[in-house]
Amino acid sequence: MPETVGFIGLGLMGRPMAKNLLTAGYPLVVHSRSRGPVDDVVAAGAREAASPADVARQATRIITMLPDSPDVEQVLEGPQGVFSAIQRGTIIVDTSSIAPATARRLAARAQALGATMLDAPVSGGEIGAIDGTLSIMVGGDAAAFAAVTPILDVVGNPERVVLIGDAGAGQVCKLCNQMVLGGTIAAVGEAFALARKAGVDPAKVRQALLGGFAASRVLEVHGERMLKGNYTPGFRTELFAKDLRNVAAAVAEHHAPAPVSAVVQQLVNALVAQGRGRNDYAELGKIVFELAGLE
Amino acid sequence: MPETVGFIGLGLMGRPMAKNLLTAGYPLVVHSRSRGPVDDVVAAGAREAASPADVARQATRIITMLPDSPDVEQVLEGPQGVFSAIQRGTIIVDTSSIAPATARRLAARAQALGATMLDAPVSGGEIGAIDGTLSIMVGGDAAAFAAVTPILDVVGNPERVVLIGDAGAGQVCKLCNQMVLGGTIAAVGEAFALARKAGVDPAKVRQALLGGFAASRVLEVHGERMLKGNYTPGFRTELFAKDLRNVAAAVAEHHAPAPVSAVVQQLVNALVAQGRGRNDYAELGKIVFELAGLE
Repeated sequence: MPETVGFIGLGLMGRPMAKNLLTAGYPLVVHSRSRGPVDDVVAAGAREAASPADVARQATRIITMLPDSPDVEQVLEGPQGVFSAIQRGTIIVDTSSIAPATARRLAARAQALGATMLDAPVSGGEIGAIDGTLSIMVGGDAAAFAAVTPILDVVGNPERVVLIGDAGAGQVCKLCNQMVLGGTIAAVGEAFALARKAGVDPAKVRQALLGGFAASRVLEVHGERMLKGNYTPGFRTELFAKDLRNVAAAVAEHHAPAPVSAVVQQLVNALVAQGRGRNDYAELGKIVFELAGLE
Repeated sequence: MPETVGFIGLGLMGRPMAKNLLTAGYPLVVHSRSRGPVDDVVAAGAREAASPADVARQATRIITMLPDSPDVEQVLEGPQGVFSAIQRGTIIVDTSSIAPATARRLAARAQALGATMLDAPVSGGEIGAIDGTLSIMVGGDAAAFAAVTPILDVVGNPERVVLIGDAGAGQVCKLCNQMVLGGTIAAVGEAFALARKAGVDPAKVRQALLGGFAASRVLEVHGERMLKGNYTPGFRTELFAKDLRNVAAAVAEHHAPAPVSAVVQQLVNALVAQGRGRNDYAELGKIVFELAGLE
């Protein structure tokens, strides 16, 4: 019989991840702020816990999937938080994308309580969560990683469940991912904007570039979104803005100047300022079009 | 018997392209500033012409492969230039990477002389030139493009010899390619710099990112160069700096703001200022490492 898993945070990502664990036969104890997702996952076979602390009393494997650092802090350290009732030997797997510094601090607190916390941010979006094909970038203790690998293999693609390094390394890796995505999306948007202003068909440019060194998944996927004007998420700009805030904090903490990422962050700030935070982050290309006076 | 081809500019790229045409059976008339490459290509079967004008007298299909806009202007418009002796019906294929505005102006002059000029910049580097697998992005008249396609298919990969649009469109497409390359290389460099400063192995980050949306040829090829510290060209930074000057001119001409490309250009300017123009342009990553105080 597989071990009981606690799951806290049944949002767009968490709910399908939890359901995949149920399908795989894991007894599940869940907690989330919203009624709807809890009812849905309970109907699928999960047990409801009254609070994060209540989850911690019933499970020594706990997955969290929350929007940002303060949410994770609240769920672990707040009143009725996981830490208030955590059992020795518990492994917390935080799949949220949060600041590496917060991940390191919380891992140290877990350790002081006789438990272990892994940072395990994912990429692959809602579709990856539904299909159980997420990439998972893990930071923390290798033995704990080995212990929870069977669980992570259910929600992620086993070939892409990777231990990157010590506590925080998973979050750093996720930030690296977002930096590369942001720089590439913005550069593709700028290239398409130049093409359009110069009277050249950006679809032909995209096709030509896909055959050479400029080829990327971004040029394929986000490039096509820009050409079709399809900005239905996907991945919301407001979440990308949060990741870029964490990038800015991390590069400041570690004194790692990142001028391209800084420019990307300002363009994303503009999108959020204009009330477009709920659209797909491929709008990073569209805002460049608009800077150039294009639709 | 295939038609005679004139070839002007037997540099790192031009020499192997000319030799591939000889191998394919095209009679070749060549001109270049340096003695060595001319002797080499003549030894392989080409005929030497005394000047660009002399090439124009002997061939109605003329390929140019030169470093920059002023070189192409000199070869076409200078004393003893191609235009001084061009035959009606001649098709000039300029495979150099030059400013789109210059390409458009020269195409108009060729047309006034009863000839046609196509802009046909390539990507794929010296290896692509040697292997005859270049991507070729063509701007100009469709009938002229059809007429020279068999020739271009010898020096390029036939699947990647593409008519992008009107005169100048090939050069615009090449600039788009360089913008995407620059933004992506810089973003990868910044991500690796953050990883290194945060004590995370950038090789593991690269491996993890290659499985997701951040995957690109740049992450594969230039990312590996950065990790190995291999900056032997490849493609020289000074040529990339030239392309980015043309990007800056084009985005100014067309009022297409490109903030990420502008940052990339300044980093490349720094590399050239430091006497590193002859190294591979993957040093765009290394200079970001150095900004962060890393080797």
